[in-house]
Amino acid sequence: MTSTQIASAQEESQAVNTVRSGGGVMLGASSIAIIGASPDDNKLGGKLVRFLQRYGYRGRVYPVNQKYREVQGHPCFPSLTAIKDPVDMAVVAVPYREVLQAIWDCLQKGVKQAVVFSSGFAETGPEGAERERALKDLIRGTGMRLVGPNALGVANVADGLIANFSQSFELPDGVIKPGPVGFASQSGAFGTFIFSLAAEQGIGFKYFASTGNEIDVTITDCLAGMVADADVRMVAGYIEALRDGRRFLAVAEQARQNGKPLMLIKTGRTPGGSAAALSHTAAIAGDDEVYDAAFRQTGVIRVTDEEAMLDLLNVMRWKRSMAGRRVAVVTNSGGAGVLIADALATHGLQLAQLRPETGNALKQVVPAFGSARNPVDMTGQFLRLGDPGIEMLRRALQCLLDDPETDAVLLYLGLARRRGAKIADALRDLARTATKPLVAAWTAGPPQEIERLRNEGVPVLSSPTRSVRALAALASFTESRSRKPRSFALPRPGRGQRLKAPPGGYSEARAKAVLREWGVPVPNERLCASEEEAAAFAAQAGYPVALKVSSPGLMHKTEAGAVALAIRDKSELIAAYRSIVQRAAAHIPGLPVEGVLVTPMAEDGIELIVGGRRDPVFGPVVMVGSGGIYTEVMRDATIRVLPLLDGEAAEMLRELRIHPVLAGNRSNPPADIDSAARCIEAVARLLASHPEVEDVEINPLRVFPEGRGAWALDAVLRVSAQASKDTTEK
Amino acid sequence: MTSTQIASAQEESQAVNTVRSGGGVMLGASSIAIIGASPDDNKLGGKLVRFLQRYGYRGRVYPVNQKYREVQGHPCFPSLTAIKDPVDMAVVAVPYREVLQAIWDCLQKGVKQAVVFSSGFAETGPEGAERERALKDLIRGTGMRLVGPNALGVANVADGLIANFSQSFELPDGVIKPGPVGFASQSGAFGTFIFSLAAEQGIGFKYFASTGNEIDVTITDCLAGMVADADVRMVAGYIEALRDGRRFLAVAEQARQNGKPLMLIKTGRTPGGSAAALSHTAAIAGDDEVYDAAFRQTGVIRVTDEEAMLDLLNVMRWKRSMAGRRVAVVTNSGGAGVLIADALATHGLQLAQLRPETGNALKQVVPAFGSARNPVDMTGQFLRLGDPGIEMLRRALQCLLDDPETDAVLLYLGLARRRGAKIADALRDLARTATKPLVAAWTAGPPQEIERLRNEGVPVLSSPTRSVRALAALASFTESRSRKPRSFALPRPGRGQRLKAPPGGYSEARAKAVLREWGVPVPNERLCASEEEAAAFAAQAGYPVALKVSSPGLMHKTEAGAVALAIRDKSELIAAYRSIVQRAAAHIPGLPVEGVLVTPMAEDGIELIVGGRRDPVFGPVVMVGSGGIYTEVMRDATIRVLPLLDGEAAEMLRELRIHPVLAGNRSNPPADIDSAARCIEAVARLLASHPEVEDVEINPLRVFPEGRGAWALDAVLRVSAQASKDTTEK
Repeated sequence: MTSTQIASAQEESQAVNTVRSGGGVMLGASSIAIIGASPDDNKLGGKLVRFLQRYGYRGRVYPVNQKYREVQGHPCFPSLTAIKDPVDMAVVAVPYREVLQAIWDCLQKGVKQAVVFSSGFAETGPEGAERERALKDLIRGTGMRLVGPNALGVANVADGLIANFSQSFELPDGVIKPGPVGFASQSGAFGTFIFSLAAEQGIGFKYFASTGNEIDVTITDCLAGMVADADVRMVAGYIEALRDGRRFLAVAEQARQNGKPLMLIKTGRTPGGSAAALSHTAAIAGDDEVYDAAFRQTGVIRVTDEEAMLDLLNVMRWKRSMAGRRVAVVTNSGGAGVLIADALATHGLQLAQLRPETGNALKQVVPAFGSARNPVDMTGQFLRLGDPGIEMLRRALQCLLDDPETDAVLLYLGLARRRGAKIADALRDLARTATKPLVAAWTAGPPQEIERLRNEGVPVLSSPTRSVRALAALASFTESRSRKPRSFALPRPGRGQRLKAPPGGYSEARAKAVLREWGVPVPNERLCASEEEAAAFAAQAGYPVALKVSSPGLMHKTEAGAVALAIRDKSELIAAYRSIVQRAAAHIPGLPVEGVLVTPMAEDGIELIVGGRRDPVFGPVVMVGSGGIYTEVMRDATIRVLPLLDGEAAEMLRELRIHPVLAGNRSNPPADIDSAARCIEAVARLLASHPEVEDVEINPLRVFPEGRGAWALDAVLRVSAQASKDTTEK
Repeated sequence: MTSTQIASAQEESQAVNTVRSGGGVMLGASSIAIIGASPDDNKLGGKLVRFLQRYGYRGRVYPVNQKYREVQGHPCFPSLTAIKDPVDMAVVAVPYREVLQAIWDCLQKGVKQAVVFSSGFAETGPEGAERERALKDLIRGTGMRLVGPNALGVANVADGLIANFSQSFELPDGVIKPGPVGFASQSGAFGTFIFSLAAEQGIGFKYFASTGNEIDVTITDCLAGMVADADVRMVAGYIEALRDGRRFLAVAEQARQNGKPLMLIKTGRTPGGSAAALSHTAAIAGDDEVYDAAFRQTGVIRVTDEEAMLDLLNVMRWKRSMAGRRVAVVTNSGGAGVLIADALATHGLQLAQLRPETGNALKQVVPAFGSARNPVDMTGQFLRLGDPGIEMLRRALQCLLDDPETDAVLLYLGLARRRGAKIADALRDLARTATKPLVAAWTAGPPQEIERLRNEGVPVLSSPTRSVRALAALASFTESRSRKPRSFALPRPGRGQRLKAPPGGYSEARAKAVLREWGVPVPNERLCASEEEAAAFAAQAGYPVALKVSSPGLMHKTEAGAVALAIRDKSELIAAYRSIVQRAAAHIPGLPVEGVLVTPMAEDGIELIVGGRRDPVFGPVVMVGSGGIYTEVMRDATIRVLPLLDGEAAEMLRELRIHPVLAGNRSNPPADIDSAARCIEAVARLLASHPEVEDVEINPLRVFPEGRGAWALDAVLRVSAQASKDTTEK
């Protein structure tokens, strides 16, 4: 096993262990010390003591502050060592200058969990960064787990263990309700914003963690604990940048296998930067696109913003699966029905085709000037008919819920304020027996009825289009659950030897030689040192041929005039050979030339790009897309974090917009898709097995008609001097 | 002038006249009769009388109903003819069986404007459709303008003229405020929904029109009146399907020239249906895509849903221009700043690059652990510092508003409930002098402060991402205003003669012959009747050549095996000639063959598709996109409603994703973009001048390197037996 492989296997097993341990990391404690406790409620150390009381924490609370004898009814200790009993968790709420001493005290006392509220570390500049490094060194190897510094901290609402100073816990309308949601954020203020909004809509939480500077405990650690906790049924979060991408994959995969939706806002779509200039792969499979791929592969729901998050939490509270994509829509406005039908199409959902029986039943309750077809337009009449009108609505919804051709029912109410309580009663009754999601879009309904419904079984959202978006996310999540369990452990390297870049790096010819070894089909071509050798090879391989100057320093051969195509005979070959060597030399004076690559002209085919690179967060990734001159303008590409499953390369090809052309249509025969898939797999194996490979790019891979294979017509390979570890250190 | 041309010119001048007449159509009346008036407030005819009173209508009100002597304080007339004075407008609120009689009475009385509330017409089925036709026949040629039937009707809030029974006018919280917005809807219920929500947010309206079945007055008529009204500063609407697309273009262009944003929700993105199978053009330039093009050409803001509409109305209320796309962002949360930066990029806006002076000024008021760079992170500290904190916020916003490098300022507040009134005061003061848009995203701010701000100059939206979307729409609208005024009148036909389709329609050869006349470059090719003729032409034109069977019945030549490429000599030609003729005959037995088209093989180039068709709503449109095998999968295309302006064809090419490839890059030389543009212009002229042309499609147009032109390698032309009028009848 290489060191990378061992590291990766350790990470994987560590992730799984954390998951199995029931959320041990920072999510529970039977006693807590507050270093910097205060009787002053406006200070962090004072606030914390109050939160613990308010939320009914049953463990022991030890205020620590040499200035006081008592803090909010608890005896106060002058120092941590003055506490006789063991301490499970320490919260550090002292000025930054005193933090190192406080953590040192914790280590002496044998405290295994610390939460550092204090700011004044890397977020403030170089001096703070120095202090942060010292703190990291202090705890290294001690077994202590530390949240922060500069963190809001962690809270276990069920246990009343609020080691978190978010203003959410001061919400005026009573305490945060305990419930089945875990929430973790890399932003304190934005996390507080989302958490508070959700709590105000009656969503109950078990955990809220905000991880600050993450010198030890990362957001992935927190998510892992939540995913493993049997009380937690959905996990939400806000991410700016993961530090431990491969571990995250294991945690997300665990969430998927446990049937727990993992809903994440991920911001910071920064472009690839300088890497973009180097390769198409880096330009197309940029950092953010790799997050997208990792999320899709593990069924993570990528959420746009706080509104989409609240919508999803409201829906997922009640139903966490949707058997298909067929939606029945009921409205009191034909216009809203058309708008919703458009939104369904935009989000990849369908208007359910109702059974004839359902249509007949609807005709009994839908006015003649409405529509008994999906989207069902009840018109506003049911609102004017009193109780019989409400009964009409109830019956319409019931028969749509009963129809086996529907997977969810969306009710648009818009204003509908009159008889709001009666409508709410009817919906609540329907929800009690419904086995499918029933969502109401009730923009301006009576607030108290909406609150009641949200707490009694029917998600009420304020916008019809956002309701559709939430249902689409639910459908995708449900689909992701049907996939087989997978592991993200990287495979054993096939060959023990490291690749070593030749001086100046890999030329096209050398890159192709490596790729051929891994199973990538390349033309029957030869690197020739002279005109005579080139002519002899061309005569043997057969005209027409192409000539290309081969040099590791020559990335853009066409631009340099270093390519000649469709050479038909020896005299053309001799002339072209001289010409391209001269032009290359003129383009980059002093260019070391390995020789000239002589290649038989390839027959027509579909051009793809197949590439891969080592992502700083998620490790090796592979990419396939439309190639040739369309590569960057079309951005028709799909990405996978490695390793690939069996059949996943073919699945990637099916995701391309160009796939119908590959599959064959009126203007062209089917292409050799199997060959293309094998080429993706070869590149994936190379990247997964050789951590020193930085990136690979075949562009174009020309794919010939079915049964006739494919050729890598050009290739780039970059190898780093030092092998990547494929994961960030812990 | 052809009849089409005359019709088009008339429409154009009619549109402009309506616009100039100050909104005469259905938007004002000095006296109003209510046919079917009632003392019962629950009946439409009763409600209307109350609305007129409640909204302070100053004209004369004539209830008409033979059952009553008095209705709600007004003397009631047994019939319209019993009224002595002239009547400007009649509202018809009687059962559908009595509608024809009521309109007949109106005509006798000389009433020029009627609003028919009654339903029971085309919306109910064939019998109702018959009744609707009779109603249409009744008013034809009389000069009466009629809204409906089955319409909510029209309302002029400023005059208190509420000839509209929308429940919006019964909102419990007082009357709809008069104001600068005109609103028109093709859906009564959905229109009421949006109108009511907007009114509840304090938006003031001058007009609300809902047009029902549109047998006479269309939504375009209503929009035209609003655009022409000097009191109206923005116009909003909900559209399902326009009946008079070319007139709409004139009205929308007028709105743009008047600087009035026209904000429309357009639903019903139905696919092109059967037409899609016939041509790529119909598949790509479908009905909805043509709406998009028409909207973009006239600066109409296409709005997704009611939320986006409310956001825009809130922003546009205060500022209807934004000089550029550079946005300064202020938050109390770094996370929100990153989220907003992502949203700016997604919506084509930029983070403003602040001047150094601004950065220095910000450092005075932004805490060290925040960020004085854009997006500015004030942190939550200013909320904790009392008045000095609010002053910090005010100063930060002021210096961003003052920086010439910013075009708008977006403030994210999230929760921020403490000191809400102080924050609101500061924002109001800033807004009083601000010359740029200042938008606050304050999701959970104190409702009374939000209401106050909305009414005093600062748009407050509830979501940061939606705030960005609204600013992007404002920026696009402002950009559209900088374009020169244009007319959508179609040009004079260049040639008087109608094109007549040959029996069986146009073969490729005949289509190319027509296109060549209009200036489309085609290869030097010949339709040959025999192998010998083909061989003789090939010898003269030069090998290699391509052979294609030419027949009007043969749409998919490759599929039929009716094409042979790269024929190198006479013997190959003879063999290929026989083979393709045989295969075509086998593919479609009995196919009439005109001959075989012999074409010199074209050199390499970039393939485009250039097409055009006659859209049922907007008339002739032209399209250009990536062509060849990528046409439908990439859907990289852009569309224009005709006529084109000078330079607009080149602009279309610049909008394509493939444009960087056309412009030349490392792997290929610049293409002959001028030739491609001239080809688009030729197709546009052909379509605009020949109303009988149904569609044209050149695919591929192979564009050679700069200076070497382009060739239409294949072409389809369809001509209808009857010339379209390019507009729907009135």
